Amino acid sequence: MAIRYPNGRQFKGPSASKKASQREITYSNRGMTLEEDLNETNQFYLEKKRAVIHKKPTPVQIVQVDYPKRSAAVIKEAYFKQASTTDYNGVYRGHYLDFEAKETKNKTSFPLQNFHDHQIEHMKQVMIQNGIAFVILRFSITDEVYLLDASHLIQFYDQKKSSRKSIRKSDIEKYGYLIKIGYHPRIDYLQVIDSVYFKDES
Amino acid sequence: MAIRYPNGRQFKGPSASKKASQREITYSNRGMTLEEDLNETNQFYLEKKRAVIHKKPTPVQIVQVDYPKRSAAVIKEAYFKQASTTDYNGVYRGHYLDFEAKETKNKTSFPLQNFHDHQIEHMKQVMIQNGIAFVILRFSITDEVYLLDASHLIQFYDQKKSSRKSIRKSDIEKYGYLIKIGYHPRIDYLQVIDSVYFKDES
Repeated sequence: MAIRYPNGRQFKGPSASKKASQREITYSNRGMTLEEDLNETNQFYLEKKRAVIHKKPTPVQIVQVDYPKRSAAVIKEAYFKQASTTDYNGVYRGHYLDFEAKETKNKTSFPLQNFHDHQIEHMKQVMIQNGIAFVILRFSITDEVYLLDASHLIQFYDQKKSSRKSIRKSDIEKYGYLIKIGYHPRIDYLQVIDSVYFKDES
Repeated sequence: MAIRYPNGRQFKGPSASKKASQREITYSNRGMTLEEDLNETNQFYLEKKRAVIHKKPTPVQIVQVDYPKRSAAVIKEAYFKQASTTDYNGVYRGHYLDFEAKETKNKTSFPLQNFHDHQIEHMKQVMIQNGIAFVILRFSITDEVYLLDASHLIQFYDQKKSSRKSIRKSDIEKYGYLIKIGYHPRIDYLQVIDSVYFKDES
């Protein structure tokens, strides 16, 4: 049987996701998923007291729970639910931060099917409350990670039905910001937040 | 077999939790849990575009998932995990709000065992980032709901090991704020937030 992560995603081993030759070239990518990299980054921010950002737990609809005597309750039947919000949120310098993170294997565009109506609606609501809403997009083949403000994502998303079903990479380069990839933290998105949203403050 | 809520809590029916005579006196309490009342309140705030506050999903450690053909993935074995943060967070007027909500059947004090170290640590971290952190405490017998700033909770919590294991109700009355109970929204805590944290702004 295939080994699976707690989130249900199949475990593929460190080398299966990238060929050895590719890994030699892209030093920064150690075969970790975007989620793992962001969890590591957020943990770094937390320890350094720079920000308090957490990934929300995967929403699950629990149907049946067993309560064996003398041991922990066991969930015997449950289903994955669609999230009504984005995955990450928290506080940085008094401001509310809210984002979703997605990756693609495409090279020249980012498919909009990675986002769903609820999440777009949520980002609009956050913007109304003057929260900082954005997405982190990774092109996994080249290990390029961009921060794109929610306002731009929403614009592309709302055009989706009438026109193309993805965002051109050239548009992400134009409207978004390349995040520098490092070792610790891996994806230092607060550096971009500082320069884009707080440029007048520091 | 007992019917259970999605969160695993046993369903007791609307009348089991309060006697009929009591319900006649406390009109405001319709036998709903604090969580249900807050979800209704947050939904109200969302619809009125007043704030975007959500309860985080219950964290679950998923061990085994079945993928039947032509139907949704079924989680066959999972366990409840202890949350590393508080249950509720979101954005209001540009500010980050973060809170935990608990109720007690005690009449004169609130047991501190309702909170655990991780949550207290999280509240401290939020305060460092200038987030607004607090707890909502309900005395369910009298249906009195208080908002208490995290700074006071932390003070009482840190005294716990050396002295008493609960907060006196008189201290909650002294340091906290009574939240007006209504129909729609049920627990209008933003009214208190406005008067306590934003009194100089409006």
